[in-house]
Amino acid sequence: MMTRTRMVVIGGDAAGMSAASQARRRRPADDLAIVAFERGPHTSYSACGMPYYASGMVDDWERLVVRTPEQFAALGIDARVRHQVEEIDLASGRVGVHDLETGRSFDEPWDVLVIATGAEPVRPAVPGIDLPGVHGLSILQDGLDLRRSIEAKPERAVVIGGGYIGLEAAEALVYRGIPTALVERGQEVMSTLDPDMGALVSKALRNAGVELHTNEKVEAIEGDDRVRAVRTAGGTLPADLVVLGIGTQPNVTVAREAGVALGRTGAIEVGPRMQTRHDAVWAAGDCAETRHLVSGHPVNYHLGTIANKQGRVCGINVGGGYATFPGALGTAVTQVWPVEVARTGLSETELRPLGLEYETVMVDSTTRAGYFPGAAPIRLKVIAERRSGRLLGAQIVGKEGAAKRIDVFATALWNRMTVEDMVNLDLSYAPPFSPVWDPVLIAARKAVERIEDTLADCR
Amino acid sequence: MMTRTRMVVIGGDAAGMSAASQARRRRPADDLAIVAFERGPHTSYSACGMPYYASGMVDDWERLVVRTPEQFAALGIDARVRHQVEEIDLASGRVGVHDLETGRSFDEPWDVLVIATGAEPVRPAVPGIDLPGVHGLSILQDGLDLRRSIEAKPERAVVIGGGYIGLEAAEALVYRGIPTALVERGQEVMSTLDPDMGALVSKALRNAGVELHTNEKVEAIEGDDRVRAVRTAGGTLPADLVVLGIGTQPNVTVAREAGVALGRTGAIEVGPRMQTRHDAVWAAGDCAETRHLVSGHPVNYHLGTIANKQGRVCGINVGGGYATFPGALGTAVTQVWPVEVARTGLSETELRPLGLEYETVMVDSTTRAGYFPGAAPIRLKVIAERRSGRLLGAQIVGKEGAAKRIDVFATALWNRMTVEDMVNLDLSYAPPFSPVWDPVLIAARKAVERIEDTLADCR
Repeated sequence: MMTRTRMVVIGGDAAGMSAASQARRRRPADDLAIVAFERGPHTSYSACGMPYYASGMVDDWERLVVRTPEQFAALGIDARVRHQVEEIDLASGRVGVHDLETGRSFDEPWDVLVIATGAEPVRPAVPGIDLPGVHGLSILQDGLDLRRSIEAKPERAVVIGGGYIGLEAAEALVYRGIPTALVERGQEVMSTLDPDMGALVSKALRNAGVELHTNEKVEAIEGDDRVRAVRTAGGTLPADLVVLGIGTQPNVTVAREAGVALGRTGAIEVGPRMQTRHDAVWAAGDCAETRHLVSGHPVNYHLGTIANKQGRVCGINVGGGYATFPGALGTAVTQVWPVEVARTGLSETELRPLGLEYETVMVDSTTRAGYFPGAAPIRLKVIAERRSGRLLGAQIVGKEGAAKRIDVFATALWNRMTVEDMVNLDLSYAPPFSPVWDPVLIAARKAVERIEDTLADCR
Repeated sequence: MMTRTRMVVIGGDAAGMSAASQARRRRPADDLAIVAFERGPHTSYSACGMPYYASGMVDDWERLVVRTPEQFAALGIDARVRHQVEEIDLASGRVGVHDLETGRSFDEPWDVLVIATGAEPVRPAVPGIDLPGVHGLSILQDGLDLRRSIEAKPERAVVIGGGYIGLEAAEALVYRGIPTALVERGQEVMSTLDPDMGALVSKALRNAGVELHTNEKVEAIEGDDRVRAVRTAGGTLPADLVVLGIGTQPNVTVAREAGVALGRTGAIEVGPRMQTRHDAVWAAGDCAETRHLVSGHPVNYHLGTIANKQGRVCGINVGGGYATFPGALGTAVTQVWPVEVARTGLSETELRPLGLEYETVMVDSTTRAGYFPGAAPIRLKVIAERRSGRLLGAQIVGKEGAAKRIDVFATALWNRMTVEDMVNLDLSYAPPFSPVWDPVLIAARKAVERIEDTLADCR
């Protein structure tokens, strides 16, 4: 009789369930048993959709769920929600599981383990951080809780942190008519952009009606039975609703305690096939490291796109196929309506410590032919290596139709193109879609000229 | 005393004037004299904007003009409109010019010649083709004439040909409320798409209110002092306005008569720096050949994007710099509102005679996350080489936000990526912009699976 391989997945969202699905696609249930444990009440949901559910732009939270435990069961995948894995034993091949519904604990043996424990919001050691009314935005339940708090008609909200979660939360709150302040420690919001581009996002946020406090650090969250205010070095901001958008960190507590090797970033070290250093133990998604395709350094992104891709690669390999995940570029996009924001590759801020020398150009153009109705402004910043002209990064801020152009830069970076190569790219053009020189190409052309001028100066 | 080099440019639109501007940027007026002759009354205009001016969507035709002769004069470029070059003498280095205003003819000597004579509409040998009321759409003046005809409130229009010019003309006419029929010889409009995707465009055209006749050939244009009807094999379509959208051909009469070497496509043969076979004679734009980056074959496209790029490369080289134009992909985009259409690389129709073996996949997705307001349908067709999985071409039909995604495929083709490479591309994602797997990546993923299945079948 054939012995079934037992696959255990820790974490029931993008990475874990992609891995489970891909493995199942290649190995039937009589060859591979799959159990996935998820501490929250939902599987496979769009975490990025939460701000839009919270705002009411998306009405039904169930639409954020890609696949329910029942649907996984139909595929022969046993996905158990409200089950927290509290311990991994690498030597004996088992995990210790706590059933949050019944309070029961049990052991589950595995032959193959996939760690996909995701990320958790950074909760800084600030007094009052645990007060009722202070929301994180990490698992789907957080989104449901935030929506409920919004529907209780808070008088004033404060968002802490101006990364993309903070921006989207602030947008959701002002969309619901709630007076909202955002506190950002840095000079501008969206610190993954350089400040010269981030300034445009700060401006967009103010234009959207958000009271923006930059260069301000939160000192305490004040309240009694629930939150009443956020205190910063600059003063006290009243708030009966607070959203934490400070960032996220890999959720690796259980893995670390088990002795799973972590990398430089604090996330789980993985090879190109998503294998950890330990036999039959894999990791994917927000809890796993990734290599940056420009710097070559290990990085740890918390993005649904990467989680899905890594989960797919992991599952194909567990399923007996072959796939690799070469790395990422830190591509990201968001909007502060009606302003779109995107970035990929390395920013100046990231390049400086690497010692790479570069030229930057900043270009203003339009999303359609200048004379075409609806032509909207787009500003691009392009960074290319000195002498070689190799593209290193790009940032875009503009209106409708601006942001998705970042994908051309991402594809160019992936292929290590120079800006000179890029100028001749055969991109699409018609007046409703682009000027005859697409803004991407204008930026590349200006970068070529800049590099040429610098070379001439060096002669 | 330094002798000035005399540069003569034939053709005052995108390619010619880009070449002139780039050469001027590198060589001052006391080193290089530049004269450009343009037979029409305008320089450097957006020919692609003409349908939108004709429809009235763009109100002021002067906005289509990028740079006037006066503006060129300020740059030290002598651009003479209404001057037709009637003869090139390669041996003695002069052109014979006819001044259409004064009727005077004269010789102009050159040390460097740039042929940028563009393309002209195909005017099939059909009776009645020269009747008043039959419009081509090639130079800006054609756009002005068409607008005037539209403003005379024609009762019924017929567009001949369903390429992008035909589609845009038909859209302009129905936008102005003129009952319009379009006659297309092939099975579907947009024959640069395969018929399975072209069918969606035909449908969009019908939905836009155009009376579409496919598989019909025009036999005659009928009328007396002006056009009255278009006769096809299927019947007679009354029309007091006819627009020819049958296609364009390179305008190489003068070059051919001078003995300039033409290539297999009938356009002027050029090297990667845009040089012809003749000393100091260059060519760029619609009249020049290009290499297709997938097939490797010479092709001749009539697109503003390529004309601008070739003109730039030509001008940099004439100016003493160094630049090459590696080739094109046949990327194109258009819309039949609200449907967007795009393509790049090779279609099945183009691949068959090349003997390349391939797999195709067709994928339906959405332009934004499925649950996000405004998510619109997008259908993608992806063609990849059998076994290797190398991307060969892509076609897109969808609604707002669909078409520009073709640029990622174009960039991938340029870099000879496989669909397997593409799956891991770090493209941008947020719910307002894309599903977590961008439609481009979904299509690539399906193509990988298809190729894998085929390989398995071959074992």
